[in-house]
Amino acid sequence: MTFRLTILGSNSALPAYGRNQSSQVLEAGKCTFMIDCGEGTQNRLSHFKIKTFRIDHIFISHLHGDHYLGLVGLLKSMHLLKRTKDLYLYGPNGLQEIITVQLKYSQTSLNYSIIFKKTNSSTTEVLYENNHIAVSSFPLDHRIPCTGFLFKEKSKPRRLIKEKLPKLISLTNIGRLKKGDDMLNDTGEVIFKNNELTLPSKKSRSFAYCSDTRYNEGIIAIVKNVSLLYHETTFLDDNELRASHTYHSTAKQAATIAKKANVEQLIIGHYSARYKDITPFKIEAGKYFKDTLLAIEGKTYEIDE
Amino acid sequence: MTFRLTILGSNSALPAYGRNQSSQVLEAGKCTFMIDCGEGTQNRLSHFKIKTFRIDHIFISHLHGDHYLGLVGLLKSMHLLKRTKDLYLYGPNGLQEIITVQLKYSQTSLNYSIIFKKTNSSTTEVLYENNHIAVSSFPLDHRIPCTGFLFKEKSKPRRLIKEKLPKLISLTNIGRLKKGDDMLNDTGEVIFKNNELTLPSKKSRSFAYCSDTRYNEGIIAIVKNVSLLYHETTFLDDNELRASHTYHSTAKQAATIAKKANVEQLIIGHYSARYKDITPFKIEAGKYFKDTLLAIEGKTYEIDE
Repeated sequence: MTFRLTILGSNSALPAYGRNQSSQVLEAGKCTFMIDCGEGTQNRLSHFKIKTFRIDHIFISHLHGDHYLGLVGLLKSMHLLKRTKDLYLYGPNGLQEIITVQLKYSQTSLNYSIIFKKTNSSTTEVLYENNHIAVSSFPLDHRIPCTGFLFKEKSKPRRLIKEKLPKLISLTNIGRLKKGDDMLNDTGEVIFKNNELTLPSKKSRSFAYCSDTRYNEGIIAIVKNVSLLYHETTFLDDNELRASHTYHSTAKQAATIAKKANVEQLIIGHYSARYKDITPFKIEAGKYFKDTLLAIEGKTYEIDE
Repeated sequence: MTFRLTILGSNSALPAYGRNQSSQVLEAGKCTFMIDCGEGTQNRLSHFKIKTFRIDHIFISHLHGDHYLGLVGLLKSMHLLKRTKDLYLYGPNGLQEIITVQLKYSQTSLNYSIIFKKTNSSTTEVLYENNHIAVSSFPLDHRIPCTGFLFKEKSKPRRLIKEKLPKLISLTNIGRLKKGDDMLNDTGEVIFKNNELTLPSKKSRSFAYCSDTRYNEGIIAIVKNVSLLYHETTFLDDNELRASHTYHSTAKQAATIAKKANVEQLIIGHYSARYKDITPFKIEAGKYFKDTLLAIEGKTYEIDE
């Protein structure tokens, strides 16, 4: 199953040096999740050839403009592009009002429904789940209510070794084997040990999105062991005080969280417009957490099973 | 005095083929007026090297997203760029509410003031004037309340022919000559006819902005004889019914208005995303009004005195 992240915008509040404001798309199997939607995101989608109609779920971390100002334009374009499917929109208190007031004054009645789900920035909660994945929000430490998002594949079944299976096998036994149980005969006796007929299940992948936030060890338990952690790095370490004062993080701090949470890979972004060259972010973070990647717009990061 | 228009966005609702949503900047002497502000306008300003801090007046024609969705981002960027000067914002009922609700949820207190002036889509009214220019709004025929804007230089003084003036001349007589009156001696007798000492005043230039609107002869009297008329052309003539149905105009219709209003030049834009090639707009309009220009993003159109 596909599990890959594409960066649409990597800069913080002021767009600069061709870097746009925050937005990402996570493709997980048949689901395409958008995470934040800064101004100009619909242009980025078009430029990077990501089909708008695939997006059924949009998650907005908080109501600073660089994280949501592209949303109403995108919703209007979806309408003009004849979308009829429901759209699920998750975000803080106020998001629904902001959208509703703009639709009211433009006298627009969308030809699809928006299902709003208000996020809660003081606790962790599941926002959405299907058979394959669960998405939850968790609190971040920012100047206004803000949540991160955790996308986690559910446990996968053990893989049957087809050539070792008996020619005739009941559905019950297939279910047992996939769950890790042994195969039984009609009288309930074990006829094959599970590991004779199956291989271990594939890895359940996960992605955590943390933007915007001050250094906050409270998230370590939540993002523990994720396959890929996106953590904002608005500043470099020489601006640590400024980072703390503005409720943002440095590259060193993002890497420290990644290390303490034992994640597999770290991806950093939300660069301040003061930095033309972003390579120092990778160098700084890399000292504290080796597997650090820079968020580059248009680049897709595959997470293997 | 400078009098020039720069196109920042030339497309209609859906951005396409690198064409952005509506926005223009008119520089008139020391004033820089922004007219409409589609999503991504702040990026266009930066790309075309137009300094944000010069803009003190922003005019929004109506509350369809492609005409204002870049505004809140621009206002936030002005704040981050340490603007302190007042900003004057003119637009329809609802604009202030849309901005206020977004500033409230982002908990942003701008470090400058916005002076809102609500426009009226049912009558012509002066919105702003200084010694050199007056800006008024006028009704357009669109699906929701919408106004055009007319920027008109005030009458200019006659130009003194310095080498023909007497060596000693009173301020009163200078004033009289500039106004077109003859020069008098102390007893009130004419000692020089005005045209012996002056040349005609330079032309008072004007620019009218008409987007979005259905074909509407009601605007002809208002935009009569302007130096430059911008008139929307969402469609070509073969889509005249669609244009009428969606409250938009065709290239032929824009040119017809230009001809009937006896304007000096016509500039057309607000192209539908269905048109990749926009040269047919110039060809069609040119049949009915010869001095037709295409709105091209980043291009500046100088209007000579």
